Amino acid sequence: MSELCDFGLIGLAVMGENLALNVESRGNRVAVYNRTTSVMEDFVNGRAKGKAFVGCKTVEELCKSLKRPRKVMMMVKAGPAVDAVIKELTPYLEPGDIIIDGGNTYYADTERRTKEVEAAGFLYSGTGVSGGEEGALKGPSMMPGGSPDSWPHLKPIFQAIAAKVGPNGDIPCCEWVGPRGAGHYVKMVHNGIEYGDMQLICEAYSMLKEGLGLSNDELYEVFAEWNTGELDSYLIEITRDIFSVKDPETGKDMVDLVLDTAGAKGTGKWMSQLALDLGVPSTLVTEAVYARGLSARKDERVRASKLLKGPNPKYAGDKKQFIEQVRQALYASKIVSYAQGFVQLQAAAVEHDWPLNYGDCAMLWRGGCIIRAVFLDRIKEAFDKSPKLENLLLAPYFADAVDKAQDAWRHVVSQAALLGIPVPAFYTALAYYDGFRRERLPANLLQSQRDYFGAHTYERTDKPRGEFFHTEWIELRKDPS
Amino acid sequence: MSELCDFGLIGLAVMGENLALNVESRGNRVAVYNRTTSVMEDFVNGRAKGKAFVGCKTVEELCKSLKRPRKVMMMVKAGPAVDAVIKELTPYLEPGDIIIDGGNTYYADTERRTKEVEAAGFLYSGTGVSGGEEGALKGPSMMPGGSPDSWPHLKPIFQAIAAKVGPNGDIPCCEWVGPRGAGHYVKMVHNGIEYGDMQLICEAYSMLKEGLGLSNDELYEVFAEWNTGELDSYLIEITRDIFSVKDPETGKDMVDLVLDTAGAKGTGKWMSQLALDLGVPSTLVTEAVYARGLSARKDERVRASKLLKGPNPKYAGDKKQFIEQVRQALYASKIVSYAQGFVQLQAAAVEHDWPLNYGDCAMLWRGGCIIRAVFLDRIKEAFDKSPKLENLLLAPYFADAVDKAQDAWRHVVSQAALLGIPVPAFYTALAYYDGFRRERLPANLLQSQRDYFGAHTYERTDKPRGEFFHTEWIELRKDPS
Repeated sequence: MSELCDFGLIGLAVMGENLALNVESRGNRVAVYNRTTSVMEDFVNGRAKGKAFVGCKTVEELCKSLKRPRKVMMMVKAGPAVDAVIKELTPYLEPGDIIIDGGNTYYADTERRTKEVEAAGFLYSGTGVSGGEEGALKGPSMMPGGSPDSWPHLKPIFQAIAAKVGPNGDIPCCEWVGPRGAGHYVKMVHNGIEYGDMQLICEAYSMLKEGLGLSNDELYEVFAEWNTGELDSYLIEITRDIFSVKDPETGKDMVDLVLDTAGAKGTGKWMSQLALDLGVPSTLVTEAVYARGLSARKDERVRASKLLKGPNPKYAGDKKQFIEQVRQALYASKIVSYAQGFVQLQAAAVEHDWPLNYGDCAMLWRGGCIIRAVFLDRIKEAFDKSPKLENLLLAPYFADAVDKAQDAWRHVVSQAALLGIPVPAFYTALAYYDGFRRERLPANLLQSQRDYFGAHTYERTDKPRGEFFHTEWIELRKDPS
Repeated sequence: MSELCDFGLIGLAVMGENLALNVESRGNRVAVYNRTTSVMEDFVNGRAKGKAFVGCKTVEELCKSLKRPRKVMMMVKAGPAVDAVIKELTPYLEPGDIIIDGGNTYYADTERRTKEVEAAGFLYSGTGVSGGEEGALKGPSMMPGGSPDSWPHLKPIFQAIAAKVGPNGDIPCCEWVGPRGAGHYVKMVHNGIEYGDMQLICEAYSMLKEGLGLSNDELYEVFAEWNTGELDSYLIEITRDIFSVKDPETGKDMVDLVLDTAGAKGTGKWMSQLALDLGVPSTLVTEAVYARGLSARKDERVRASKLLKGPNPKYAGDKKQFIEQVRQALYASKIVSYAQGFVQLQAAAVEHDWPLNYGDCAMLWRGGCIIRAVFLDRIKEAFDKSPKLENLLLAPYFADAVDKAQDAWRHVVSQAALLGIPVPAFYTALAYYDGFRRERLPANLLQSQRDYFGAHTYERTDKPRGEFFHTEWIELRKDPS
């Protein structure tokens, strides 16, 4: 019998293949299995040829070829397929063996599965993996959660394959996140923040293209320039690139040929729905999800565009200055978006009793993943300095950054309204900032209304919290006749 | 044995009591039951004294005292209590008897219960009831759904007790909505629209109070004036009243003593979460829910208010003109909010196979309920003219109304940004309008990004819909070095 393997992987779609190659490349022997055997054979005889892989035709064979404690990672479609694979696996596992789910699983499923798998005597890890195909191959961001006892066994392998950051390039973008579904929750928030970042970039693009009439060449230069400063990030970088790509077929600028109907896979929606359950205002991800929804209703928009009027979208002021103002609007809005994401993480951590380290979360996203950005170093510093920071906007660095950007931000938002350019994420970010920094919001009127029509009661500014009052408004109102 | 009753009611909290009194006042004999017997006795010997009520100490007694087919309305807390009462009732029912749930039940529970109760041989009606205590007593808005066969039996009673509108005051705000959970869904959308209306009024209040420094007396006059025009509605009317109420204890203006922390009961959240599932952008209700959430985080805001800076909120322009511009901003935003609500209803109707009549929905809300407004006549007319209208904004009346208001609306929104006054609902309404009326949104860039980092593919403007393409962006990009 051949040498036993260090790691098993189930599911050889492109993410699975690439992760397997990544694990093998770090000196591990890897056993692979795919439900359709030919997929496994194609891989073993193709990209994996000559490498330390063992192709397995059954789950039993896979389990038998692994060293104990076994580490079996599932890279299968989130949902019932994961439960099916777990059921297939467990007869061949022994106590202490580890099942890992590397998919985009809904965190509550991972909460449940961790308990089920632990009850059966094994260990479970729901691990968020971000970075797309390329990240999976060369170094993803990894967010492992689940059974804490699994971590010492997974750590050497996961930290070896993860992206590396830091001045010496030796800090892995992989650290233990927390029990049960914590890893998948953090991954979901990562994705939700990604929704916000992408929407904000699209709104900046709209302002520059519609408001200033910039060409794709000019947009390339703008994003290239932005990528050298505070906004330095993967998404700004690929946006720059996109403006340079010509369609091989027509020779036209590719971006202009792409249809403006955004798709979505659901993590932004989950994050929004959970924010609503938690009562935390994660407005950016939600507006980003809704903006995708509106973009998808293309035919309706085409009809509406023929009927509904608006102003001329051309900006009349200084072009160069406006570009810089749009950059600042994007930066300030992005800070709000991350602040909201971390507030949601904190609320979820309280609800689910996860001892999360928020500085670590920022570092996990520092490399390998889609939202990787220099900016995350500042977030890490803010949480290192005050681990219980209740809102990133209150960290001196970010309070100052937003303050410096706010004149430009307000100018851009006001111009968007006047020019008729839709910027839902810029808007909602500013509304959040202006609401959050207010000691008093108009909700006193809202509570008065609720008490007027529904006797819902209210608290008073001149009495202690927790005492509730009701007024007979109709009796006390001025006679309207 | 005494004469049999026409109607039974379970649950004598204030809404149940008032509905029972309303039903009795229309010439019906009503049997009442409450789990805590003393509550029933207090009612029968109190407000119900001398009226045609029969107090019942058991569910069995209640059922025995009813004419067939029995009509038993539950006014109990939404959730497991409803299932418990159904279980208690069914042993004493006969085929064709009708159970009615008049609570704020989640529509999916009503979908399930309708099927379960029908399978047991009875009829079920999930009926949305709006109007608060006063409406329940004097004439609520009623949104009945469930087993279609229940409607002929419920119609005479429900239409008699419902609010009446129309030139002759004889059109009842009660009409059959649709099968299974349709009635409760329509009620939920009513509540979500109510969230939007209240938030918009609060934002107008903010602009007038902070931007113009209006006193409560001046605000009274403004809302009194607004209530005579396009905005004529119950919520504007009670807002007017609220500004006139003095605290009996301190003599101060009551509204200033009410704490600015809004509560919520969940229907706005449900509507948002379902909009996200349906992929329809119901941004107003969601921003309103989030605004309540932010208001509730009072302690954080107090801390933030000491650290985060913003501009002077005082408006420098003409006061009288600005008041009118704020009115127009409120009106235009309100139109968008209702447009979104009806789009969500349409999407839900498709998903659940409910043959909804949207003009009827508008008329159900015309009287009795919290969002009652003259404005709903225009919505009814729009749907009567074109029952398949895909968006209210495309109805000539509303397209024109928004067009006339848009300069003022844009001015107010731009000023809110510059003055630092948070207006999330004004903002998102404008973003929706500007997005909806656009043939092309920046989602082409977003799809390019998704294809770049995740090979998610895209459609092309120069190819038929439904064909998907992928570009090797990295290979084709301009060399960034």
